[in-house]
Amino acid sequence: MNKDLENKIEKVLTRGVAKIIKKDNLKKKLESGKILRIKHGVDPTTPDLHLGYAVVYRKLKQLQDLGHKIVFLIGDFTGRFGDPTDKEESREMRSKDEVKKLAKNYIGQLGKILDIDKVEIRYNGEWYDKMSAEKLLRLMSKFTVRRMLERDMFQERDKKGLEIGLHETVYPILQGYDSVVLESDITVIGSDQEFNELQGRKIQKIEKQKPQDLIIMPLITGTDGKEKMSQSLGNYIGITEEPNSMFGKIMSIPDNLIINYFELCTDIPMDEIKETKEGMDNEKINPRDAKIKLAEEIVKIYHGEEKARKAKEYFISTFSEKKIPDDVPKQVVEWTDALDSYQNIVGFIVSAGLAKSKSDARRKVEQGGVSIDGEKTVWSRILTKEDDGKVKKIGKKDFVRIVFKD
Amino acid sequence: MNKDLENKIEKVLTRGVAKIIKKDNLKKKLESGKILRIKHGVDPTTPDLHLGYAVVYRKLKQLQDLGHKIVFLIGDFTGRFGDPTDKEESREMRSKDEVKKLAKNYIGQLGKILDIDKVEIRYNGEWYDKMSAEKLLRLMSKFTVRRMLERDMFQERDKKGLEIGLHETVYPILQGYDSVVLESDITVIGSDQEFNELQGRKIQKIEKQKPQDLIIMPLITGTDGKEKMSQSLGNYIGITEEPNSMFGKIMSIPDNLIINYFELCTDIPMDEIKETKEGMDNEKINPRDAKIKLAEEIVKIYHGEEKARKAKEYFISTFSEKKIPDDVPKQVVEWTDALDSYQNIVGFIVSAGLAKSKSDARRKVEQGGVSIDGEKTVWSRILTKEDDGKVKKIGKKDFVRIVFKD
Repeated sequence: MNKDLENKIEKVLTRGVAKIIKKDNLKKKLESGKILRIKHGVDPTTPDLHLGYAVVYRKLKQLQDLGHKIVFLIGDFTGRFGDPTDKEESREMRSKDEVKKLAKNYIGQLGKILDIDKVEIRYNGEWYDKMSAEKLLRLMSKFTVRRMLERDMFQERDKKGLEIGLHETVYPILQGYDSVVLESDITVIGSDQEFNELQGRKIQKIEKQKPQDLIIMPLITGTDGKEKMSQSLGNYIGITEEPNSMFGKIMSIPDNLIINYFELCTDIPMDEIKETKEGMDNEKINPRDAKIKLAEEIVKIYHGEEKARKAKEYFISTFSEKKIPDDVPKQVVEWTDALDSYQNIVGFIVSAGLAKSKSDARRKVEQGGVSIDGEKTVWSRILTKEDDGKVKKIGKKDFVRIVFKD
Repeated sequence: MNKDLENKIEKVLTRGVAKIIKKDNLKKKLESGKILRIKHGVDPTTPDLHLGYAVVYRKLKQLQDLGHKIVFLIGDFTGRFGDPTDKEESREMRSKDEVKKLAKNYIGQLGKILDIDKVEIRYNGEWYDKMSAEKLLRLMSKFTVRRMLERDMFQERDKKGLEIGLHETVYPILQGYDSVVLESDITVIGSDQEFNELQGRKIQKIEKQKPQDLIIMPLITGTDGKEKMSQSLGNYIGITEEPNSMFGKIMSIPDNLIINYFELCTDIPMDEIKETKEGMDNEKINPRDAKIKLAEEIVKIYHGEEKARKAKEYFISTFSEKKIPDDVPKQVVEWTDALDSYQNIVGFIVSAGLAKSKSDARRKVEQGGVSIDGEKTVWSRILTKEDDGKVKKIGKKDFVRIVFKD
């Protein structure tokens, strides 16, 4: 085995990895020269893929670059069952068309990280739509209630007195059975999926397959520095976000996340990251400069070198020179083309929660207290896509970055 | 409504009944004149139907006599899944032929109580063999783990640290869904089935059916006076047992069960039972006489008047006159034609645990200490079917009744 391949395998096995099950086994598989099948499954939702997802997908990319087959599984069957909040009513089911649409959006974004033409895309309705109740019961009979309820998610819900739908106990089994059908050699997952994919190992053994190995990636912390990055918490950096917005958001993360982001979200060699860490530790490197480098690196991955450079220049000229604080995104307002009524500057101020009413907002504009990227504006100003990423100042201390959501 | 019908309905609603859900509703149904569908389900096993089963079947018979449709459900699908003791191994499945054979045996015995030609016999494989995994998951999604684990059987197992197979949590749902398919108006069950059939009410409501009412019958105590009557505990009186054996076993029950057996296992009017109770309470009736009447009544139900009379005569001449204690069945040895080696009297004595070895048994016989129904026997004596129900005396105090098991 040549040195380059050896290094690449080493990178797969170590960089950013939270845990591997079973490491020796996985190493042998990777060194065998065999083309491996790498499963990764998602339920069809409407995500803005963000850097948290990318941590996993970039690991998949490393494996794809080694010539392995990425099998991207869309849970169009499993995605049909929601949380049984209202027990007496049957819940809505997504239509197949809807799922395909959701999948298309998903795959479109995924193409920013993986070579999508080489990915095998599958839907688990392919086997579950044909599965009999009997087969399902036979699978279930291999598992005990106690084992299923050990899952941390269930434990937490139980502690809170929340209900667990009986069908929900079957999810880990279905997710595990996916590995059987897809003949998964390896699966790459976020750490919240460990329990489910371990069931996959068990079912594969029952079905006389070699069990998949698990590469478990950590869940990264969001821009707030507190919670894990998530769409619903609004503390995320989307991989399709515009360069200026992406750059600005990265600049807003707390300093203690810089090294973590370098390791998980960039390709900067580990030696260099180590140097940066040491430089910051002994105060030879200003964390702000390290962050600018981090932001430029990440924007480069999703938008290319040219746009990354421009985003950096824009950030420096706007924020550094005009003394706008870096942490503006804390007041970001999501924005869509569809919300016509807010495209006017006055509506936007109200939607951002910076004025009580449209008349209050108009008054503020007329008093000359509202500026966009340092320039005073008038109340008839209409916001356009060109304003994306700009920072609006209202009064003395309220800033808000304008973000268009695609 | 005529008085006779009114009385019959009253009998259905009260005699021997442990609990009714919902009584008012059930009464209205019975008075409506509509032909009702009465579900009763069993899993295919190899039972000797005994008086414990008969408590339920005799209630079904009362309903059949009122013109209602008894729907006898054989769980050929549900019966395929056993207790998941060995979690890694797939368990044996009964073949359809085997199930049909078991069912035939079951139905044959049932014919001793119900007018079997009028019974609608169904197998739940009819719908579950066609059911999809998705439909099953949708049914499951109506229930929570917590609710299912409330079932007393599960609670007990959990306390003992025993495992519950995940598929077992689905049984109550399947049993409930049977009621939907069969459009059950009423189900008659033993008290251990209450939880499962209550799920049936719930699913019927979800499926926009009127929920079935439950007639819940008590589990009767076996001949040992301690445990509930059960085949595995050997404390049962089979409804196909030979008259002499049946009579003798009934004579062996403790006195405190006499009234309970009268109510649950005979058609003696309640007034008369009350009189017997009072008679025993104030010592005007000898419990042994009450028991002889009970035994004759029960044997009459399963074998007719003539055989019941003969069994009574046999009992009195053998036991009363020869001073053989009534409670001989405590040492009953089960006996089959297949066990050739025990058909010799010597082998039988060993199998009954009354001698340490065949030579010990032979010595006892040669010493003249072994008698059958009061007559001394020789060691070369071969037991035949004609000995069924006879009592063998060994030494001064060891009695054993010879029972052939068919």
